[in-house]
Amino acid sequence: MTSEKRSEFALIDRYFARPTPQTALGPGDDCALIAPAPGMELAITTDMLVSGTHFLPETDPRQLGWKTLAVNLSDLAAMGARPRWILLAGSLPQADEAWLAAFAEGLFACAGRYGVDLIGGDTTRGPLNFCVTAIGETPAGMALRRDGAQAGDDLWVSGQPGLAALGLAHLQGRTALPAALAKRCVDALQQPLPRVELGLALRQDALAHAAIDVSDGLLADVGHIAERSRCCIDVWMAHLPCLPAGADPVLARDCQLAGGDDYELAFTVAPDRRAALAALAARLDLPLWRIGQVSAAVQGGAVGRDDVPGAVNLIDADGQRVTPQRRGFDHFESA
Amino acid sequence: MTSEKRSEFALIDRYFARPTPQTALGPGDDCALIAPAPGMELAITTDMLVSGTHFLPETDPRQLGWKTLAVNLSDLAAMGARPRWILLAGSLPQADEAWLAAFAEGLFACAGRYGVDLIGGDTTRGPLNFCVTAIGETPAGMALRRDGAQAGDDLWVSGQPGLAALGLAHLQGRTALPAALAKRCVDALQQPLPRVELGLALRQDALAHAAIDVSDGLLADVGHIAERSRCCIDVWMAHLPCLPAGADPVLARDCQLAGGDDYELAFTVAPDRRAALAALAARLDLPLWRIGQVSAAVQGGAVGRDDVPGAVNLIDADGQRVTPQRRGFDHFESA
Repeated sequence: MTSEKRSEFALIDRYFARPTPQTALGPGDDCALIAPAPGMELAITTDMLVSGTHFLPETDPRQLGWKTLAVNLSDLAAMGARPRWILLAGSLPQADEAWLAAFAEGLFACAGRYGVDLIGGDTTRGPLNFCVTAIGETPAGMALRRDGAQAGDDLWVSGQPGLAALGLAHLQGRTALPAALAKRCVDALQQPLPRVELGLALRQDALAHAAIDVSDGLLADVGHIAERSRCCIDVWMAHLPCLPAGADPVLARDCQLAGGDDYELAFTVAPDRRAALAALAARLDLPLWRIGQVSAAVQGGAVGRDDVPGAVNLIDADGQRVTPQRRGFDHFESA
Repeated sequence: MTSEKRSEFALIDRYFARPTPQTALGPGDDCALIAPAPGMELAITTDMLVSGTHFLPETDPRQLGWKTLAVNLSDLAAMGARPRWILLAGSLPQADEAWLAAFAEGLFACAGRYGVDLIGGDTTRGPLNFCVTAIGETPAGMALRRDGAQAGDDLWVSGQPGLAALGLAHLQGRTALPAALAKRCVDALQQPLPRVELGLALRQDALAHAAIDVSDGLLADVGHIAERSRCCIDVWMAHLPCLPAGADPVLARDCQLAGGDDYELAFTVAPDRRAALAALAARLDLPLWRIGQVSAAVQGGAVGRDDVPGAVNLIDADGQRVTPQRRGFDHFESA
């Protein structure tokens, strides 16, 4: 193989070969080998990002590299797992070296920030598509799950859900944000910060009964907790974070309730742990909002579907149920 | 969500939800949870299959489901790892239920044959693309690797490498095979059998010093063993499996030496284990061919690149070096 030939193997070697200090055998063989620590379970997730579906084709490749990894680390965060290893498969329309170098730079910036080894992958020709598999460790039996919410728990959410969807609306010309807000929202969209430290703290301090990351939209994802925990959850509009000044309030509310791509954590915690949550928010320098409450589901109740297990009810300041425009994002919804 | 709505989540639930008896927490949360057995390392691999690059768009979805998993299990086989868990990410241009059902049927037929749990995944909209991550177990420090070949080792290969590439040539109209051979070759292409039992035996009986699966072409993959083991390998044409009767011999030889997609194993074994290999071939009912030998590399030798580490020399019946048409398949080669 000459040095001029841009082969699959040379591309991989050049841009994606980095030291893998946590790994028994890194890239270059048929498989990677990892040695989990005794007593630990592994949390594993995979996510596919497709050009035109999950990101705009003209997205900056460095930011795309960051985000491709960040969305997977967010799933580990939601389980309270410590990120350890990742694999990357990618399909590329051509071998564009400058683009790949920038993508790798963003990916490894995120990998370095969260302490993960890239241990394997696959590069092939085709429409632009990346698939990351991420693996984290958690003590056996201690992972945060969606199915542990208990009646009476407070519902919490981190950060400012909705900014990423506002940023997308701005980029697509559906709204015009003031410059400073536009930058903040577009950064939230293109370079999300997975809440790894929050997830670890919620697990290590046994704070959360249930957790999920907000990738499909706040109401939809809270709904997944409600479904898996066989409970109902009320979300109080008056307790939601303030909408950002300068944005259209109707759009901003829709983005907050149903915009995807935020990668904040939503979680439920017993009411007697509110002081611990306040201390945690201060320690992480991350706002944590108490936005609702878990109630028991009425099995076969007569009051309609809002009280069946899995229901999420949006409640206004007068205590009345409100019907949101939409609850989340679904790639295959026909409507 | 109404039962009529074909949402992302409903699709996944319907076709890809199966029991996961080997798994601490299966699909439905942010991550799956697995509990590796004490003393075991995990072998992990990921492969992406793209429509138009790795399979023809009109490929039967049941066979495609099988193959999507089989190519990953082949990587586990090459490490001597026992397959345990898989994750599947897929991008689909539309939610075609009949197609998805057939794909799932093929995938689970392969999963059942080799005893793996599907523990997680991701479904999204986009050009047809599947990415599987497969995880197997092997006792710590015992995995077969590419870098263990020793001077004097015999080189072996299983099965009939080249049939899959012949099958592709037939499907593409580049050759016309007799009906029975065409069926055998197309089956090899579309429903490969990963050599899991062979890989386990080579590891458990400490037979192989090095192993790889033949996915990119026999000479190219043997070259990966030579590169990683810092040795040279001679491949003897007279010891290669007979070419199939009825095929154009020039094309068949090229397919045998450089055709990808076979998923046989190539491996090196000390010469004093030949009887054990013969017994293993009989036990598995799988032909094993002794096709060459590992020699030490000449460091900085004067005889040219054929003796540098990583060289694979093709030797004819008269002991002369032969230059093959090509050595393997590379998605990004420009020539």
